[in-house]
Amino acid sequence: MSLTFELLHKTGRARRGRVTTPNGVIETPIFMPVGTLGAIKGLSPRQLEETGAQICLANTYHLHLRPGEDVVERVGGLHGFMGWKGPILTDSGGFQVFSLPTAEMTEEGVHFKWEHDGRKVFLSPERSMEIQMTLGADIIMAFDVCVPYPCERVDAHAGVERTLRWLDRCVDAHDREGQVLFGIVQGSTWSDLRKRSAIETSKRDLPGIAIGGVSVGEGHDLMMKAVDDAEPYLPEDRPRYLMGVGYPNDIIEAIARGIDMFDCVLPTRLARSGIVFTRVGSYRVTNKRYRRDRYPLDTDSDCYTCSNFSRLYIHHLLRANEILGTTLMTLHNVHFYLKLVQLAREAIEEDRFEAFRRDFHDTYKVHNA
Amino acid sequence: MSLTFELLHKTGRARRGRVTTPNGVIETPIFMPVGTLGAIKGLSPRQLEETGAQICLANTYHLHLRPGEDVVERVGGLHGFMGWKGPILTDSGGFQVFSLPTAEMTEEGVHFKWEHDGRKVFLSPERSMEIQMTLGADIIMAFDVCVPYPCERVDAHAGVERTLRWLDRCVDAHDREGQVLFGIVQGSTWSDLRKRSAIETSKRDLPGIAIGGVSVGEGHDLMMKAVDDAEPYLPEDRPRYLMGVGYPNDIIEAIARGIDMFDCVLPTRLARSGIVFTRVGSYRVTNKRYRRDRYPLDTDSDCYTCSNFSRLYIHHLLRANEILGTTLMTLHNVHFYLKLVQLAREAIEEDRFEAFRRDFHDTYKVHNA
Repeated sequence: MSLTFELLHKTGRARRGRVTTPNGVIETPIFMPVGTLGAIKGLSPRQLEETGAQICLANTYHLHLRPGEDVVERVGGLHGFMGWKGPILTDSGGFQVFSLPTAEMTEEGVHFKWEHDGRKVFLSPERSMEIQMTLGADIIMAFDVCVPYPCERVDAHAGVERTLRWLDRCVDAHDREGQVLFGIVQGSTWSDLRKRSAIETSKRDLPGIAIGGVSVGEGHDLMMKAVDDAEPYLPEDRPRYLMGVGYPNDIIEAIARGIDMFDCVLPTRLARSGIVFTRVGSYRVTNKRYRRDRYPLDTDSDCYTCSNFSRLYIHHLLRANEILGTTLMTLHNVHFYLKLVQLAREAIEEDRFEAFRRDFHDTYKVHNA
Repeated sequence: MSLTFELLHKTGRARRGRVTTPNGVIETPIFMPVGTLGAIKGLSPRQLEETGAQICLANTYHLHLRPGEDVVERVGGLHGFMGWKGPILTDSGGFQVFSLPTAEMTEEGVHFKWEHDGRKVFLSPERSMEIQMTLGADIIMAFDVCVPYPCERVDAHAGVERTLRWLDRCVDAHDREGQVLFGIVQGSTWSDLRKRSAIETSKRDLPGIAIGGVSVGEGHDLMMKAVDDAEPYLPEDRPRYLMGVGYPNDIIEAIARGIDMFDCVLPTRLARSGIVFTRVGSYRVTNKRYRRDRYPLDTDSDCYTCSNFSRLYIHHLLRANEILGTTLMTLHNVHFYLKLVQLAREAIEEDRFEAFRRDFHDTYKVHNA
């Protein structure tokens, strides 16, 4: 198998692990920055590395449509395309496709029109595997059915069953060496569906399992419930990935519940609108109170941005639409997320994760959008 | 004096020199990238340094209006604001102001409305000095009268005379230690006016002299004529700066005519619209012929962009409006300009500048916009 997982230490349910891929090692718990179109918006691979990133994501849906996986393949796949030498994970396109108003699903797959130019596209387990094999990430995701929140139980149930059938088709279709496939647990907010999905997905004996169908508007508590419903039925010796999560408090709580991997657009997307993450909470640096503020974005941070620039400079750059503002903000936020999981890893190793978790919640003021 | 110039070598009229400022040494001939609003669009100071930049520019007009020099001063002036540790030069605002349709000039100064919000602003020699002293660059520029091209001789003449009177007011008003003032030669396309302006400006015994009123639409030949008209009357022992120039061929020809310093927005501005500079000319990487092109932007370049990324990737990034595309393009173009002046410096040192110049023109296909 071209991916191995070592469970190095546990404290409570929190896990300290190590994922080894053909392109490098990932210390878990880990946060994975998202490079939707093959670039973390505003960061060069070198800047990304400097944030502490060990693996990054790219989106199958977006790259299939633009520039097309055949173009990516011409430079040796995503690693050559992006100039990122570490591990890469691609999602399957499922999550994006199911959020499109034009999506029409059959047992075979999903027909939809691309928002950008109205082009008709078809994705299925086999097509998704084909595209992801061509893109050449280290870890690829099964093509799943992601139901909206809220949804009817009958739809959630059907989604779980179809996701399992599609998973088998993904397993059959996937045959690229040096690349592994993760299955995805669905089940929306129903405990028994999450349980069944976790048990059945685990039976496929894949090198990693994700919990999907979260971060769709259900909120922190239902998200944690989904983890609690599925996690006990996942194999101990495989990495667990909570998809599209989340805010810092979501991540800390999911780590406490045995999750190893996370991805989310929040630190990058919010960076672009001026939202800074810090150990005590987030704030908007474009607010006029920071116009003359000489402090760094986060007095606690040792990132490049905070070591060299003031709030008043970043405030100015963002207000003037200078793209360096986005770069410096993104660098800080991604560094913050990666520092957070690093601190969590250290706390788990040293058997003080519960104290770390309490201290985090005492200090971090949640005012999530 | 807080700026010194050593003329290290001459070959023909081409000069190899060294400018020493409180914030570092500048080897000339040099190109100075432009950071209008206190940032080279898309580049961090570290990325800028890596292009080979030794000094950069910022714009008094833009920074006065946004965020205001008082804000910049709060973090110790432009060096602290931008996080750039090397020398910085600010222009006087004259060039920008005279291009505004609302500008109204009297002997005292210029009244205008800011394009952005209609705010009424007044700039004069004294105000420009005051602002530039507060911004705190190493080199600041006199507030001059820049006439349009084409213009009447009577206007060009009046502009020369008023520029000289304003220069004396600038000299009187400037009293910041560790910062020097350069005068500016005007005279449009009239040889005798350029000569008079050069002689009179030189009499002020300033540590450096610029040739202004070029790059206003007059084209390569008239630009070179302006240099030829003024250069013989400039002191040998002071750096000469040709403002707002230019395309690579403009720069090579001006170096051949004894110019030491250049600034221009072309490499950065054109980068953003996909124009790549190479040793054989420029091309547009967003053209569809590059959609599947695996080569680097410039096979001759050892910049970060060309060492790590393909044309098809940059093509994709720019087409998808990914800001990393701008960053990588800008990095390449600025590196190209700085490599060009580096090669010119080496050619002068080794007494083979004429061969270098011929070789440049034989290889570089001019198709300037």
